[in-house]
Amino acid sequence: MRASRFFISTLKEAPADAEIISHQLMMRAGMIKRLGSGIYTYMPMGLRVIRKVENIVREEMNRAGAIELLMPLVQPAELWQETGRWDKMGPELMRVKDRHGRDFAIQPTSEEVITDVVRSEIKSYKKLPVNFYHIQTKFRDERRPRFGLMRGREFTMKDAYSFDRDVAGMQQSYQVMYDAYVRIFNRFGLQFRAVAADNGAIGGSGSHEFHVIADTGEDALVYCPQSDYAANMEAAEALAPTGVRAAASADLVKTATPGKSKCEDVAALLGLPLAATVKSIVLAVDSEEDDKTATQIWLLLLRGDHELNEVKATKVPGLANFRFASEAEIVDHFGTPPGYLGPVGPRKPVKIVADRTVVAMSDFVCGANEPGFHYTGANWERDIAEPLVADLRNVVAGDPSPDGKGDLAIQRGIEVGHVFQLGTRYSQDMQATYLDETGKPQLMQMGCYGIGVTRILGAAIEQNFDDKGIIWPASIAPFEVVLCPMGYDRSEAVKAETDRLYQELLDAGVDAILDDRGERPGAMFADWELIGVPHRIVIGERGLKDGKLEYQGRRDAEATSVPPADMAVFMKARLAA
Amino acid sequence: MRASRFFISTLKEAPADAEIISHQLMMRAGMIKRLGSGIYTYMPMGLRVIRKVENIVREEMNRAGAIELLMPLVQPAELWQETGRWDKMGPELMRVKDRHGRDFAIQPTSEEVITDVVRSEIKSYKKLPVNFYHIQTKFRDERRPRFGLMRGREFTMKDAYSFDRDVAGMQQSYQVMYDAYVRIFNRFGLQFRAVAADNGAIGGSGSHEFHVIADTGEDALVYCPQSDYAANMEAAEALAPTGVRAAASADLVKTATPGKSKCEDVAALLGLPLAATVKSIVLAVDSEEDDKTATQIWLLLLRGDHELNEVKATKVPGLANFRFASEAEIVDHFGTPPGYLGPVGPRKPVKIVADRTVVAMSDFVCGANEPGFHYTGANWERDIAEPLVADLRNVVAGDPSPDGKGDLAIQRGIEVGHVFQLGTRYSQDMQATYLDETGKPQLMQMGCYGIGVTRILGAAIEQNFDDKGIIWPASIAPFEVVLCPMGYDRSEAVKAETDRLYQELLDAGVDAILDDRGERPGAMFADWELIGVPHRIVIGERGLKDGKLEYQGRRDAEATSVPPADMAVFMKARLAA
Repeated sequence: MRASRFFISTLKEAPADAEIISHQLMMRAGMIKRLGSGIYTYMPMGLRVIRKVENIVREEMNRAGAIELLMPLVQPAELWQETGRWDKMGPELMRVKDRHGRDFAIQPTSEEVITDVVRSEIKSYKKLPVNFYHIQTKFRDERRPRFGLMRGREFTMKDAYSFDRDVAGMQQSYQVMYDAYVRIFNRFGLQFRAVAADNGAIGGSGSHEFHVIADTGEDALVYCPQSDYAANMEAAEALAPTGVRAAASADLVKTATPGKSKCEDVAALLGLPLAATVKSIVLAVDSEEDDKTATQIWLLLLRGDHELNEVKATKVPGLANFRFASEAEIVDHFGTPPGYLGPVGPRKPVKIVADRTVVAMSDFVCGANEPGFHYTGANWERDIAEPLVADLRNVVAGDPSPDGKGDLAIQRGIEVGHVFQLGTRYSQDMQATYLDETGKPQLMQMGCYGIGVTRILGAAIEQNFDDKGIIWPASIAPFEVVLCPMGYDRSEAVKAETDRLYQELLDAGVDAILDDRGERPGAMFADWELIGVPHRIVIGERGLKDGKLEYQGRRDAEATSVPPADMAVFMKARLAA
Repeated sequence: MRASRFFISTLKEAPADAEIISHQLMMRAGMIKRLGSGIYTYMPMGLRVIRKVENIVREEMNRAGAIELLMPLVQPAELWQETGRWDKMGPELMRVKDRHGRDFAIQPTSEEVITDVVRSEIKSYKKLPVNFYHIQTKFRDERRPRFGLMRGREFTMKDAYSFDRDVAGMQQSYQVMYDAYVRIFNRFGLQFRAVAADNGAIGGSGSHEFHVIADTGEDALVYCPQSDYAANMEAAEALAPTGVRAAASADLVKTATPGKSKCEDVAALLGLPLAATVKSIVLAVDSEEDDKTATQIWLLLLRGDHELNEVKATKVPGLANFRFASEAEIVDHFGTPPGYLGPVGPRKPVKIVADRTVVAMSDFVCGANEPGFHYTGANWERDIAEPLVADLRNVVAGDPSPDGKGDLAIQRGIEVGHVFQLGTRYSQDMQATYLDETGKPQLMQMGCYGIGVTRILGAAIEQNFDDKGIIWPASIAPFEVVLCPMGYDRSEAVKAETDRLYQELLDAGVDAILDDRGERPGAMFADWELIGVPHRIVIGERGLKDGKLEYQGRRDAEATSVPPADMAVFMKARLAA
């Protein structure tokens, strides 16, 4: 590509609404242009990156045996009603009526449509397994779109859907996709981590997220450096402490803690470690009985320095649909507003669940259910009946790994892929069945597999940038190499060598751009460093006289001299490295 | 591709709602699957054709210097309001509200968005001309979607937009696109014709349509076999008859024609040629004056065997916004309902416009403005004042070509591309200006250029099919060649030669599919003839013993024997032909 035939538009300053570095740099590099909240035009420079991402995804999906099709954006509500998602999904689902007043959804994903296609196309076990995917524009009406392509409303996603005869088949299809994802993210040239995830609302029985590692990532990833254990924070198990609980050694004493409603403050006041305190979290569960709503109040106990993991809380039998209790409900049951609650003698009976760590504590501090007072020396059995016990907390760095092979570490990541075992979540509702060898209908076992194509751009930048701009991995860079001639229009020698090398690189299959815009060197270099092309070749008159071109990698501190005749081979070797 | 790893799903019968052959064959060949009215999933087989069409379009757009970007599907209403299209477009424009109640359009085209991009990105004459395009999903909420991909609601279109400094530049950009379209349609391997078109509602000053020739086409194309004149029916000029009008030779006689309200019937009754009759068409034009609607009634006269061309009528000064008059208005002005109207003495004054042919007639038949009566021997000047004259009719085959180089012929076509000179239609409303050399702001001159990507599939089939199925041109076929082994699973020799040839073809860059499904020959051949793969190679045990493979082109009556070792070279030669 010659720059004069392309569209390059860089900015010195990012717009004020660009809060994170990837958004700022994509705007400054002219990769995207805002049309509305969470809606962007992909400018020519950005689209080239998107296409490279798409092509890698497509090649690896095809290699894994998935078959590409293209499902519509505008999907009839009837299918979404079959699975209940028309009602269950909130305003994120963009709904539209056609001229006849019929309801449609603009697809955020396509489980319903693909299941509809497959239930009508596939009747026999002989046609299974099958895996269909498409790479398509999606719309999700986010409450608060932000961060550019990271949390947009309109975005591009690859979504694949596998259909199998049985659970073993589904698990095999899932593994094939998992392996394809590993290849895809490796080809992107990004540091990533696959972590076990909770299946959440989508249901089913197994799931992994693929995260690009970045300090600015929204998600905490838990892993064990000594093993291959990895999970996201929601799914990472906190093991019960080993050993027996120490016997009570202190008396239960009600202590004045006026104005100290947080564990940190109570511990400081009492001169005790935070880990000697227990915090109380009150939940409520509503149920319909005889046309009336009955509410059960629950008390969850965590060590003062631990955090509640809400996903784990939903796994406690009875808590699947919990909400946080209102202050009125808390006062009614404990006789005090939040800040001084505890398990010792609440006013009304509540169900108590203690975290695994808490049930191993003795002589601990907890609220006294009286404003301005805490207990010290609280002990299980003696002061409080043995509670229900569950894993309720987020793990912290240094916790033992659930696989017993070391200690956990935590890093930040940006979720860019997700693989799910869906089981019969959709095939049941939509009656997607096949006939087995005996002619009996059986529900298909499904999996679904997403990659956020446009999100990859943001994540790649969050991982790879410096104060000059973006540093694209070569495989997804808008161009692999930029040729920067010094005086293309002034010097015959420079023009001749630049044209020769450009053609030689193109012939060698290198995706090169020749900057023939006539910009001055400083502006030209700044543009390409901002845009993030990973390799730069400078062609200057002085260098040519010495038989040299200047090569500099985007991360290199200094340039390397290479004879013109060797440059194409040198470049190919760099790109292959 | 191996068929066992692909998805092939053919039907013996087309669904009842498939009215035209391309729709029937695409459904039967498993290329598309209906999701809702005018909304289709592109199945794997169909998507391959779409991708090939897209790639040819993309390559030629890039070669012509157009730059690809991608604009959003969901576009804020504000931009559409700037150009007035938010109000002007009817229910075809799919409108949607987001969670905050803000209005958006789902794009049918992107004039507004690209003009918004360009007005903010391009400030100086130095950055012009520029031409941006995208290939993107569109939505148009058709009143009556039908014919499969031919008139769908969701479809794929390539739309390009050029921006120039002046009219000469715009015309040059237009010519570049015109030439690119010729290359594109040639590469599709389709018979096509570019015809001059009326600019219509979109405004501007020049336009051509690209039509795929097909007997089943909706549009009539007018061309001159002796020259390069070509226009669509709306735009084709009917020249005035040469020579002077014959003098009146008959008296004006009121003749009873009871129950004969059509020219055909009157001519038959009177024993006169249809071309001796004149038909009357009554139009009305409303205008607002002092808060009241005033209506002017017009009488248009055409020869009995000619048809009104409504687009031409709008070009008559004063008729731009005509409507057909109501029966009440007709009775009020002519004293008779339609069927017996004429230019001789209407009850109230009306404006009369005669077609060029009519004004050259003498001694003609026309309605007498009295139920059941016509005049014979009507003549201009003597009986009726000389009227306004205009070209009002559709041309017919045999009319002289407007370029004076022969006679016109008419054929049917399917519109698949359109190039427009827009001028300042959008840049004016949206104030898309650049600074010229003197620093003065100037409006940009725009052009827009569309190709209906998914419509190409339907049009290609309407032009190329037989009783067995589709016959794709090789450049857009889902596969170029199908290998049909006889007993792939039974015969070692067949399997070995099939695998060898398949690999040899792939290595030679041929897009081949190997049918390893184990179907019986009859079913296998029928599938591929239906799907329309243009070249077939049969590998059988008996043939191999004789050192022969069987090649058959989709249009060939008989197979050709080719030695295995020569087949790849033979195939390449066929594909290059």
